[in-house]
Amino acid sequence: MTAASDRRTGADTRLGDSAPMAELRALRASIDNIDAALVHMLAERFKCTQKVGHLKAAHDLPPADPAREQIQIERLRRLAAEANLDPDFAEKFLAFIVREVIRHHEAIAANAGN
Amino acid sequence: MTAASDRRTGADTRLGDSAPMAELRALRASIDNIDAALVHMLAERFKCTQKVGHLKAAHDLPPADPAREQIQIERLRRLAAEANLDPDFAEKFLAFIVREVIRHHEAIAANAGN
Repeated sequence: MTAASDRRTGADTRLGDSAPMAELRALRASIDNIDAALVHMLAERFKCTQKVGHLKAAHDLPPADPAREQIQIERLRRLAAEANLDPDFAEKFLAFIVREVIRHHEAIAANAGN
Repeated sequence: MTAASDRRTGADTRLGDSAPMAELRALRASIDNIDAALVHMLAERFKCTQKVGHLKAAHDLPPADPAREQIQIERLRRLAAEANLDPDFAEKFLAFIVREVIRHHEAIAANAGN
């Protein structure tokens, strides 16, 4: 197997060892660092939501909580705007995560019912 | 307008001021902190990808780079597995972000063509 650092991307083929390619490589290294941080934050977030799932199953609460989600949406949109991130994207991002969380909570509730 | 902290979620209505509600509130406070971190990391990631978009437009590179994406997918799946996050979810997450990035790059390329 070829190491990732030895493999050529489409941009390598087009730009070779030029200054723009060096700039592109530096930006991609930052993106890779940020992605590692995102994956680890997401892992930590799912640890929290798994605990929430067990708590909800134990107390017979529904997997989704629309009132809580509305508060989260408003807060994330505000934080996004402050950080110069598209608030619509932040809302879609939260919806994407929450869909996965609800899938987990439903699985926990189904197992608790066995 | 009611402050978010004064508003009642579905769980508040069901659990009142019980110990499980205190535990749920603590978990939700951690989730809110993690979400703020995620939003700020995403804002920083899009700053990098906007620069990549301008670089690609200036050098007439296509918005998508499948070889680069394949390297990213393999790496994120490995990082996810190490962090106990579902690798399939990590891959879906990257695809979700990349769709937004390509949308931005296409917009930059379209403007560069004017």
